[in-house]
Amino acid sequence: MSQTKYRIDALQYANWSENIFRQMREGEVDAVHVTIAYHENFRETVANIEQWNSFFERFPGLIFQGKTGDDVRLARETDRTAIFFGFQNPSPMEDDIRLLEILHALGARFMQLTYNNQSLLATGCYEKNDPGVTRMGREVIAEMNRIGLVVDMSHSAEGSTLEAIEISDRPIVITHANPAFWHPALRNKSNEVMQALGETGGMLGFSMYPHHLKNGSNCSLESFCEMIAAAAETMGIDHIGLGSDLCQDQPDSVVEWMRVGRWTKKVDYGEGSASNAGFPPMPNWFNDNRDFRNIEQGLLDVGFNVEDTSKIMGNNWLRFFDENFGSA
Amino acid sequence: MSQTKYRIDALQYANWSENIFRQMREGEVDAVHVTIAYHENFRETVANIEQWNSFFERFPGLIFQGKTGDDVRLARETDRTAIFFGFQNPSPMEDDIRLLEILHALGARFMQLTYNNQSLLATGCYEKNDPGVTRMGREVIAEMNRIGLVVDMSHSAEGSTLEAIEISDRPIVITHANPAFWHPALRNKSNEVMQALGETGGMLGFSMYPHHLKNGSNCSLESFCEMIAAAAETMGIDHIGLGSDLCQDQPDSVVEWMRVGRWTKKVDYGEGSASNAGFPPMPNWFNDNRDFRNIEQGLLDVGFNVEDTSKIMGNNWLRFFDENFGSA
Repeated sequence: MSQTKYRIDALQYANWSENIFRQMREGEVDAVHVTIAYHENFRETVANIEQWNSFFERFPGLIFQGKTGDDVRLARETDRTAIFFGFQNPSPMEDDIRLLEILHALGARFMQLTYNNQSLLATGCYEKNDPGVTRMGREVIAEMNRIGLVVDMSHSAEGSTLEAIEISDRPIVITHANPAFWHPALRNKSNEVMQALGETGGMLGFSMYPHHLKNGSNCSLESFCEMIAAAAETMGIDHIGLGSDLCQDQPDSVVEWMRVGRWTKKVDYGEGSASNAGFPPMPNWFNDNRDFRNIEQGLLDVGFNVEDTSKIMGNNWLRFFDENFGSA
Repeated sequence: MSQTKYRIDALQYANWSENIFRQMREGEVDAVHVTIAYHENFRETVANIEQWNSFFERFPGLIFQGKTGDDVRLARETDRTAIFFGFQNPSPMEDDIRLLEILHALGARFMQLTYNNQSLLATGCYEKNDPGVTRMGREVIAEMNRIGLVVDMSHSAEGSTLEAIEISDRPIVITHANPAFWHPALRNKSNEVMQALGETGGMLGFSMYPHHLKNGSNCSLESFCEMIAAAAETMGIDHIGLGSDLCQDQPDSVVEWMRVGRWTKKVDYGEGSASNAGFPPMPNWFNDNRDFRNIEQGLLDVGFNVEDTSKIMGNNWLRFFDENFGSA
């Protein structure tokens, strides 16, 4: 009996449309973790869920809301894509720890403790100083552990990330980033973080966002897959997956919202620059959800066997979903 | 094999406490529909759910949140009480039809279209004119039908109630009221409404709130149970249950909030009067959740057999929960 090979993307923030949902089906993507809040407060996040409910109602043959690992299996059985909600920032919970359970009941499964900046909970990767997980951050991690809302440190600072891994009773994740040893960007992660994640049952999702790639938009598929092989050596084949950070069809005003929110009146270019302010062009081997097959082939080409390729393409994430989306 | 006899109360709004939850267990109450909003807007209703989540976390051996009929069976098996959420007013959905699905995901299972006054959806029983279900009301009923949120017309005007029964594709309810033929109060219901409910698979829950009782607080158990026998003749033994309207341990400031909300700066006495403004004393045969056994005995004493008594005490509500809390 051969094991089913699932295909899961642990981060997308596209300008959602029927076209994209059809591409998910063409690409045989069983599950996608979608960002539904960058800087939105609670009520604005609820409005975003309403928008998703409208999509679920309009396209029931293509997508449905995922809440558990079994929903990924249901997606495969019914030829649809399960959509899992997450936040890149704790803004949806505002200053109210009990909103976490409300948001989990509405389907939230991942929440970043910070998005680039200092939050009430921890420090973002663009701050000068990193004082670590705050008093409230410790309370929030415990509550997230209790209810089955996964801590995501993709945009957090190094010290805060290591501290969160240590504090959390359940494994945490970095849904979308790459190893700094391959491309030393502020958003990419140290070997120490990667190893700590692997040792605690956590997960790293590899990003295809050009600012996280060696040579940016010109990164080769071979280089990307060789990086994954090296990461597997560093943190273990069972703790890696994909988190494309695909922002398909978004206007450049959206990357400005992601970077600026309501925290500054000035323009902040984040990973970009004044001369390269918008979304960068994607590498030619990953433009949309139909291109996961390229990555699968690329992994086989650099020497991964079928089983390990399947782990990276989705089976590791499915195991993680099974173990971490329910109450403790 | 004898059928399990469930005990369900379709309306309470007590000043919740461990004491009351323990009385529910002493009274062997398997499920209670609790009001979590009278005039609260969306965010205030979420805060009330947070308060309930706090109770669920503190008293997991006594209560848990109910969402389906099977949760009533689980309550019986685990010697606990399943708590189902409902609203006496559409205020939690504000002016946003998509909030209904959000609120259903958070556990809402009943919503009154009106509370005494005209709402955006229909007319309350205290208005002079009753123009019926509004344009938005029709849209809201269709959405409630789709998602499995039950229309409750307990505090609605006669014409609006009959129209809602006709418009709704799924059965509707009056969770807490009595027949007007027994006690002609504005809040009690005509034979026409009762018959229309029965013919469409709906339910009427009999209220033990003194303003709904013949002779008020001095109403006898025998009179109450004879009224139930007459109501069974009018609308059918399968369409009646209990909805006590128990407001145990509430200060009188709460009945003022229920009546006045934020819609007037003056005092409105509702079913009371200036000389009798507060909560009236309960009849001596029903003071708290331990007293359901009195009603069960009273029903047997007026001639109901064991099976029909069980239907009234909870089995009818359980069938209704099974059929009406899921998506269409």
